[in-house]
Amino acid sequence: MPKPAEFTYIGTPRKSVEGDRKVRGIDCYTSDYTVPGCLHARPILSPYAHARIVGVDKSAALEVDGVTHVLTADDLPTRDQVIKSRGTCTLAGDVVRFVGQPVAVVVAESAEAAANGAELVAVEYEEFAAIANFVTATNAEAAVLWPDGLPGEGSIAEGHAEVDDDSAEPPEDMPKNVHLTHHHSRGDVAVALAAADAVAHRQYATSRVHQGYIEPQVCTVVPDRRTGGVTIYAPIQGPLWARDAIAAMLGLKPHLVRIEVMTVGGGFGSKNGILEPLVAAVALAINRPVTCVLSRTEDFLTTTPSSGCTWDMEIGAATDGTITALRAAIRMDAGAFASGLGSLVALLLGSYYRFPNLQIDVEEVNTTTPHCGPYRAPGAPQAIFALESTIDEVAAKLGMDPLEFRIQNCVVTGDPMYNDELWPSVGIRECLEAMREHPAWKDRDDGPNEGTGIALAIWPGGHMPSATICRVGGDGIIRLHIGSPDISGTHSSQVLVAAETIGVSPDQIEIITGDTESNPHSAAAAGSLVTYSLTGAVIAAAERVREQLLNVAAEKLEAHIDDLLIKDGIVHVSGVPGVSFTIAELAADAQSGTGPIIADGQSGSIINAPAATVQLVKVNVDSDTGAVTPLNMVAVQDVGRAINPLMVEGQIHGGAIQGVGWAFHEAMIYDDDGQLLTSSFIDYDLPKAHHAPTLETVLLENASPSGPLGVRCVGEPPIIPGAAAAANAVRQACGARVTQLPMRPEVVWNEIHNGTDT
Amino acid sequence: MPKPAEFTYIGTPRKSVEGDRKVRGIDCYTSDYTVPGCLHARPILSPYAHARIVGVDKSAALEVDGVTHVLTADDLPTRDQVIKSRGTCTLAGDVVRFVGQPVAVVVAESAEAAANGAELVAVEYEEFAAIANFVTATNAEAAVLWPDGLPGEGSIAEGHAEVDDDSAEPPEDMPKNVHLTHHHSRGDVAVALAAADAVAHRQYATSRVHQGYIEPQVCTVVPDRRTGGVTIYAPIQGPLWARDAIAAMLGLKPHLVRIEVMTVGGGFGSKNGILEPLVAAVALAINRPVTCVLSRTEDFLTTTPSSGCTWDMEIGAATDGTITALRAAIRMDAGAFASGLGSLVALLLGSYYRFPNLQIDVEEVNTTTPHCGPYRAPGAPQAIFALESTIDEVAAKLGMDPLEFRIQNCVVTGDPMYNDELWPSVGIRECLEAMREHPAWKDRDDGPNEGTGIALAIWPGGHMPSATICRVGGDGIIRLHIGSPDISGTHSSQVLVAAETIGVSPDQIEIITGDTESNPHSAAAAGSLVTYSLTGAVIAAAERVREQLLNVAAEKLEAHIDDLLIKDGIVHVSGVPGVSFTIAELAADAQSGTGPIIADGQSGSIINAPAATVQLVKVNVDSDTGAVTPLNMVAVQDVGRAINPLMVEGQIHGGAIQGVGWAFHEAMIYDDDGQLLTSSFIDYDLPKAHHAPTLETVLLENASPSGPLGVRCVGEPPIIPGAAAAANAVRQACGARVTQLPMRPEVVWNEIHNGTDT
Repeated sequence: MPKPAEFTYIGTPRKSVEGDRKVRGIDCYTSDYTVPGCLHARPILSPYAHARIVGVDKSAALEVDGVTHVLTADDLPTRDQVIKSRGTCTLAGDVVRFVGQPVAVVVAESAEAAANGAELVAVEYEEFAAIANFVTATNAEAAVLWPDGLPGEGSIAEGHAEVDDDSAEPPEDMPKNVHLTHHHSRGDVAVALAAADAVAHRQYATSRVHQGYIEPQVCTVVPDRRTGGVTIYAPIQGPLWARDAIAAMLGLKPHLVRIEVMTVGGGFGSKNGILEPLVAAVALAINRPVTCVLSRTEDFLTTTPSSGCTWDMEIGAATDGTITALRAAIRMDAGAFASGLGSLVALLLGSYYRFPNLQIDVEEVNTTTPHCGPYRAPGAPQAIFALESTIDEVAAKLGMDPLEFRIQNCVVTGDPMYNDELWPSVGIRECLEAMREHPAWKDRDDGPNEGTGIALAIWPGGHMPSATICRVGGDGIIRLHIGSPDISGTHSSQVLVAAETIGVSPDQIEIITGDTESNPHSAAAAGSLVTYSLTGAVIAAAERVREQLLNVAAEKLEAHIDDLLIKDGIVHVSGVPGVSFTIAELAADAQSGTGPIIADGQSGSIINAPAATVQLVKVNVDSDTGAVTPLNMVAVQDVGRAINPLMVEGQIHGGAIQGVGWAFHEAMIYDDDGQLLTSSFIDYDLPKAHHAPTLETVLLENASPSGPLGVRCVGEPPIIPGAAAAANAVRQACGARVTQLPMRPEVVWNEIHNGTDT
Repeated sequence: MPKPAEFTYIGTPRKSVEGDRKVRGIDCYTSDYTVPGCLHARPILSPYAHARIVGVDKSAALEVDGVTHVLTADDLPTRDQVIKSRGTCTLAGDVVRFVGQPVAVVVAESAEAAANGAELVAVEYEEFAAIANFVTATNAEAAVLWPDGLPGEGSIAEGHAEVDDDSAEPPEDMPKNVHLTHHHSRGDVAVALAAADAVAHRQYATSRVHQGYIEPQVCTVVPDRRTGGVTIYAPIQGPLWARDAIAAMLGLKPHLVRIEVMTVGGGFGSKNGILEPLVAAVALAINRPVTCVLSRTEDFLTTTPSSGCTWDMEIGAATDGTITALRAAIRMDAGAFASGLGSLVALLLGSYYRFPNLQIDVEEVNTTTPHCGPYRAPGAPQAIFALESTIDEVAAKLGMDPLEFRIQNCVVTGDPMYNDELWPSVGIRECLEAMREHPAWKDRDDGPNEGTGIALAIWPGGHMPSATICRVGGDGIIRLHIGSPDISGTHSSQVLVAAETIGVSPDQIEIITGDTESNPHSAAAAGSLVTYSLTGAVIAAAERVREQLLNVAAEKLEAHIDDLLIKDGIVHVSGVPGVSFTIAELAADAQSGTGPIIADGQSGSIINAPAATVQLVKVNVDSDTGAVTPLNMVAVQDVGRAINPLMVEGQIHGGAIQGVGWAFHEAMIYDDDGQLLTSSFIDYDLPKAHHAPTLETVLLENASPSGPLGVRCVGEPPIIPGAAAAANAVRQACGARVTQLPMRPEVVWNEIHNGTDT
């Protein structure tokens, strides 16, 4: 591997390997892929938020031409798994717990017949009281969702890395409908807050937000007559997670569930096996290939958005600008099952600043709404909105510059996190310093009704040991086997890593992706960990391939391997460019001689490479209407190393605009009966192109000492601080501290005109 | 890798890994695999052996409901390749040169519509004189097939390893319709024969024999909208050969032709891309998936059987039993294109015995019959019939025991071959010595009309460098990626090699097969070279996997790696069996720690590992009818090492019975107009179960010094000497030297009653 200064491909922007086929519309999404003899499944969704299923009359549906089966929970091999899984995975057996929970499935020869049949399935319900609001769910008069306690903790179909959580408490003596609490403390917060020179105390409310992927949940499952297993074609981010979870639900050994990952039409944490267990169970039950694609409304009703939360935040500081205490009480709406995100929220709130005293208490509440799940940087946009709004308030009370206040208090490498574990290398201070020098901050010159705010975030990152295989054929093509799905341009970076290491053009590299049986074990496309986890494996394999090629060349050129150079796919003796061999010639020679060119590569790390970011948002506030217009954003991010800057910037662009969605647009609204009022893209307000501010990215390359090439996680950080920075900008523009997400005009107007403090 | 004496799995018979699904009828053959939207192709075959295509009227066919296209050579991307390929690959452009040559293709929505359309395609021909008989093809009055010479030597769609052939002559001054000759000589044959104490001189004629696979040629081709390439689903023995040949014909880069090998329903040398180029060209031309399966008659008419030949053989010896000279003049029927098998025949004739003087002349003749191609041990059953019949005659003239005569004269390691290259390790003498001690020979006691004959053969073998990948998952399953198709039980041997090397049960090993893009470069299933080529790669990968597992275990057990044992998938410290870890536990640990367990393995050899065999056949001859009944066969074969003896014996059983087919049953008969008279299994006489003699196999394990585990080639030798041994047995039973294959009753009767010498 050349040294950074000599890089030819790494660090040079290069277009996406799959961009061409996406732009031309010829990429193969799951619903583009048809299997012969495939039947179509249509789920029957509960119209009630909370009810007992009294009976299902299948007869009328079965008379529809083309309908082959109407199945309920009892008909599926997952029958005994129903209550142990999240409700969206299979069919409700007895009680439905949210509007949209599948209770039956119609299977038919065509999608139309299945839809016609679905209209005729008559389900009789005995309706119970809904528990639609997580704030009032603990009240004395509230109904109880799980009288015997939430079943099946450690939900086997979760599909997201478990947060190690010593603080989680057993479900005894907890408020009504609370199924999990987390408590973290350090020092004496009450004493510290009482002694503080300045204390900011605010309550915040953040909404439930959907991942808003363009491609709805979809999968095709083909039962394997030979093995009794299934092959699943689906857009999945973590195929090995999904395989293991689905296999457990179906009672199969993992290798009998083969997952072939199709192009992912947007995932953002949610494409990990929500629909697949149900369709796989149906396919196994009837021994036929089955496909299912959710409509947009079905998707909104049944899938796993992020949690809505309330935040009671109190931060104290001394006049010298030193933060002395954090107190945070959070209530999270987990929906009908367990979300498991509480301890991640505690980590985020308690680890960005040096808090000598802290007290964080999280309650996770069950309601009759869909199970909440991971969405890009799970828990973070809302937590950092609460944290960074409060930080700005403390700085304001002290009369300090909010950026300098952050630099004074932010963690550096080796500082303790919320749980006294120490931060590995982290560059948040460097991001703040870069922002300090950026003209958009340094020379900010807000006009009337304008304001500029900043906020920071750190994403702790993750790691999954990975392996790869690299082969060179007699055609000179370098085939790189990668098991990690590409949802964010990661393949477009790995071709550069392999090209750089071997000394060939990236055009000569082809990525080979197979299924969970044929792929080398590799990281999930989640948790911002793919590039960090995979790069070391690609380098290792490519270095071995390079060595094998040089050994063949050394023999042919009668030279020592150390005297050889590979450049642009040509090998020659250093200083003797006239006599040379192409990679293709050497590989052809090897595969008819001493053995084909092939090498594995492995990587493993137990240290994370956290990524820090600071975002600046400039807004205009119309105080007559409350409408806020984001004018400009600057995203400074420590990416460790930008292997392919174009892909990295693309990630930051996408994340930042999703942050605009969090800030001003998106909310899933339920009425008191638990009916979703925002179940289409008409009602659910995704930000559109014209809502995007101008956006500048600043990439810092503060190399991680633990990562290959110094890379850090990239994908999740950019979604996090935008809402907080926007709220701080609104405060600057109009003096109003908006404490609710999204900052819709009516909310901002109300805060401007009726707000109790400034 | 344990030492042979300690082998647990290698050398122990174990049932086939795919036997269960074959027996249960659930293996996926090409015609079991349906692609959505796939069209069906039906070729229009020439009814004339030799004619000009005057015109093709597509109109009536195109009016058939469901017919979408009628295509001729001009419509295909292979248009300019037509005359450069063998005729079966694509469509004839101008002149047809055998009955059955495809001239057009009807494509339709269903197989039935395609067949209906095919009946209505009106092709107008201008008929030329047929050249049906290769013996008379050189006569003055014969028509000429290629007036301008045979085009496109080195035929790009050949798909079989080229025999290195310095002896081949340019096509000048050759007899009419002869396109290639080979001449090998050593010493002075005329002088030596004149001086010999005994000379046997015989002429032989051998028939054209078909491979007789049960599954006809079939393939499904899916064009790839994205790349402009194709994916081919077909039963193919050498997917890399076929890929390169098909890509060249289509004008595509090799990686754009993806071949996914389906279960091969019998290949025997012929499943290497006969039908695929045509179907691929059609699929590309119309940009739709296309499938085609030949009927049995179409298959007989258009595919590539072995050559019919004549043999003029003269062998001289001294009274002390020393062979002094071989003279052989061979004429081979190549069919309408080049077969390229002539120099292989010279090798076989001139390399088994020490011939101080030899003269071998081969003529390859074109006729208006299908192109001849490789069939299991190409050229060998017929050549060795001629050679070993003559050897018996010389021994008889000298009054010597035919086995002792062979022992005295057969080659040993280091003796020269026909071209003065030296034999690598070869064990034919050992086979003869083993047969000498076998009761069926030593204690032979032929009754009236019974006779026992022997014959020997050596197959030179081959090698193709190969690579493999071995991975261990957290489920403990060891996944072994093998790119070589399994047509003969080779996968069932490799699971034993991997199991033995790692120390787990073969049940824990799963073979992963992908396509030509995802598979590691690996040997073709041809030339008896798979096991020899692949075993070293599997051992190398498995040894590295074992080492990786032991490294993980050493850490966990706090022991040195040298003190650890793996047995039955359990790792423990030697002498401390109580504390142990399973392979699954170690692999799971690795893939969440320092890196997944994965290893490549490579092998390459430039030395062959020839295999020798001696077969004994005992027959009963009914001199009234000429009917010969084979009663018993003994096959002694030096297999080097029988990794899975059950698979090795299966290969010998199958080959030996095909030898019975060569001896007594099979012949493709053409009339003077070039019309095939044996175009179904009614007319073409494959041996049936009741035709099989009792059969005993004797495996010698005379380890090859060049091969991994000492393995030698196995698949081809057993088909070779049966016909010769049977002829020698007939001679013993009734005194008649039958010089024609197959030895049908009328031939034998004629020889008995009208034969000129005994």
